[in-house]
Amino acid sequence: MYSVNTRDHFMIAHSFRGDVFGPAQRMHGATFVVDVEYRRLALDDDGVVVDIGRAGDVLRQVLAELNYRNLDEVPEFAGRNTTTEFLAREIFERIVRRLSAGELGPGAAGVASMRVVLHESHVAWAAYESPLR
Amino acid sequence: MYSVNTRDHFMIAHSFRGDVFGPAQRMHGATFVVDVEYRRLALDDDGVVVDIGRAGDVLRQVLAELNYRNLDEVPEFAGRNTTTEFLAREIFERIVRRLSAGELGPGAAGVASMRVVLHESHVAWAAYESPLR
Amino acid sequence: MYSVNTRDHFMIAHSFRGDVFGPAQRMHGATFVVDVEYRRLALDDDGVVVDIGRAGDVLRQVLAELNYRNLDEVPEFAGRNTTTEFLAREIFERIVRRLSAGELGPGAAGVASMRVVLHESHVAWAAYESPLR
Amino acid sequence: MYSVNTRDHFMIAHSFRGDVFGPAQRMHGATFVVDVEYRRLALDDDGVVVDIGRAGDVLRQVLAELNYRNLDEVPEFAGRNTTTEFLAREIFERIVRRLSAGELGPGAAGVASMRVVLHESHVAWAAYESPLR
Amino acid sequence: MYSVNTRDHFMIAHSFRGDVFGPAQRMHGATFVVDVEYRRLALDDDGVVVDIGRAGDVLRQVLAELNYRNLDEVPEFAGRNTTTEFLAREIFERIVRRLSAGELGPGAAGVASMRVVLHESHVAWAAYESPLR
Amino acid sequence: MYSVNTRDHFMIAHSFRGDVFGPAQRMHGATFVVDVEYRRLALDDDGVVVDIGRAGDVLRQVLAELNYRNLDEVPEFAGRNTTTEFLAREIFERIVRRLSAGELGPGAAGVASMRVVLHESHVAWAAYESPLR
Repeated sequence: MYSVNTRDHFMIAHSFRGDVFGPAQRMHGATFVVDVEYRRLALDDDGVVVDIGRAGDVLRQVLAELNYRNLDEVPEFAGRNTTTEFLAREIFERIVRRLSAGELGPGAAGVASMRVVLHESHVAWAAYESPLR
Repeated sequence: MYSVNTRDHFMIAHSFRGDVFGPAQRMHGATFVVDVEYRRLALDDDGVVVDIGRAGDVLRQVLAELNYRNLDEVPEFAGRNTTTEFLAREIFERIVRRLSAGELGPGAAGVASMRVVLHESHVAWAAYESPLR
Repeated sequence: MYSVNTRDHFMIAHSFRGDVFGPAQRMHGATFVVDVEYRRLALDDDGVVVDIGRAGDVLRQVLAELNYRNLDEVPEFAGRNTTTEFLAREIFERIVRRLSAGELGPGAAGVASMRVVLHESHVAWAAYESPLR
Repeated sequence: MYSVNTRDHFMIAHSFRGDVFGPAQRMHGATFVVDVEYRRLALDDDGVVVDIGRAGDVLRQVLAELNYRNLDEVPEFAGRNTTTEFLAREIFERIVRRLSAGELGPGAAGVASMRVVLHESHVAWAAYESPLR
Repeated sequence: MYSVNTRDHFMIAHSFRGDVFGPAQRMHGATFVVDVEYRRLALDDDGVVVDIGRAGDVLRQVLAELNYRNLDEVPEFAGRNTTTEFLAREIFERIVRRLSAGELGPGAAGVASMRVVLHESHVAWAAYESPLR
Repeated sequence: MYSVNTRDHFMIAHSFRGDVFGPAQRMHGATFVVDVEYRRLALDDDGVVVDIGRAGDVLRQVLAELNYRNLDEVPEFAGRNTTTEFLAREIFERIVRRLSAGELGPGAAGVASMRVVLHESHVAWAAYESPLR
């Protein structure tokens, strides 16, 4: 199995609901450093997993939708806790949609699975990974 | 599959038996920076893998049992080489016991697997991972 | 010149005023990983720059005053842009006040200068450093 | 499953063929920081996954074959794009050959799988992993 | 003294002349992860050291002049060893020229000194720093 | 001012005397990841600060004197607390002695100052720096 990873970051405000979150129920924020790993069994004809340039562009575009936002005011997240693990999946799904739409190029059809990691500090991160259909 | 990771560290002295260890047969020591990754298929009702606050507390307590110790004098390690990979499993088991005892909260019952990584320098680490029963 | 550094982090929401900030004029947030370096010419009688345990406690207390807050609502920051460099100085001054009040122990009177670094992502940080009177 | 990882690096020049590579079609180069992870189900009699000293030696020797080279002039890579993911597999295979030849010691026969990661910058890496026969 | 730092990277091929360089006399290459630190005594009216957005743009443009190049073929480096320390100064001077030309905005006139660090691997880096004017 | 840095590590056991050290008065240990920075005003004729190959060799030799040792049993440290800051200076002095003896080559006579940093965990480090001569 081959993998390629590209990294970028975004910065948001949000708050959580639920006693389990303690002081994080207050409005606060986070920098998320995001790693997106693409996996496939064999390389394409160019010898790559995905076009790393396009992968970087797609990641930048997906993060721009969230960057410098108060997630409490984003309609599609209404009633949800935008935890690090929740956001890892959200970004996973948004990248998959763009991959399926061909934005990563035709070669990306061979991607078998993906993993998205969100680093929220030097001591904590969360991730979501899944095979692609 | 979702993951959440929390990091902490501990500092110990020990020595090894066996020619394979060369100069590490002498009394020496290590700082271990420890990553504990919890994995599960679906998030709980709060939208998290585990209560990250409790996970940090449990890790601190488990490492406090070993921190600032000479492992050669810890009775339960008698006759064992406390290698980095051995310690990764030891910490894995101690966290599982606390998780099973409910110290990570009732939501943690949904944790499917765990991975414990011990970084011993900028060039070496060891890990133990396993599904939970 | 000797140095000792201790690291911790805090997570806040805020927004900026001024065209120079572009989309960061919107409510957003950040994780700041904070390094505090204490410097002095000679070690104290215990052979240390400062009591690292107390230094860690003081840093945690200073960051707790800001952690999980919307800085736009903190009265003492009214009318100020809480940029990374501004916050580096703010944390510097708060630590100096505690050091002067003896919270780092009597040995800390020998500290000659300090440097506070706030890492806001994997590609950006800001710092403030100064001699102490 | 236990893992042990060892890290080293090498520095090479190369160029790529194919429009997908854009400016990387020009002669350029890279530092690759290499992680090699060995995995097995049970520790050997010494309590280790592999002899970490030998693992470091083997990695150094494998990388020395490529280090400070222009890969465009290496005969066995003729007609191939020496992408990061391609090189991850190449190094994987070279280590497996040495492991099979006994250079990691007899205990290494228990290694079940390996993963080789090549970090090419602070934002990109590629990997190859596979079970061993 | 306040500082702000921005990070980016570039990838080049080159070779060195002189016995001191051993195998690095062969054509090889490197990834350089570049940190540029701007320092000044007081913040500007916006509360910043420099406009971090412009600083990132300037760094990207300066590195684009060198990125994906064989430095042995760059006319202005003829007869020079493009060592890491040499390149740190080269990038320093190119940023200073753009800063002096106003590309970092009028506020950047207050920058007192700069430091450029080039990380060439996980174990080595070089830097150049100097007051401005 | 130019700088070049080289990194390596060593692993030791020790204990401290003094109430300030709390549980670190027990026999324990540490991994120290060591950065040695050499600084000078102008590059030598080869375009370097020091011969990085020799600098790496000298650091390895200096650390080998301490590596895999119980520092409580090293005669020259008798009656001293081998704190991280103390060890930073000790390594500084040992490198200076080798530099003065010519082990870094004749070009190293131009080194103006040095800084030695010992990272003891992901949250703490200590350093010693000084002009030479």
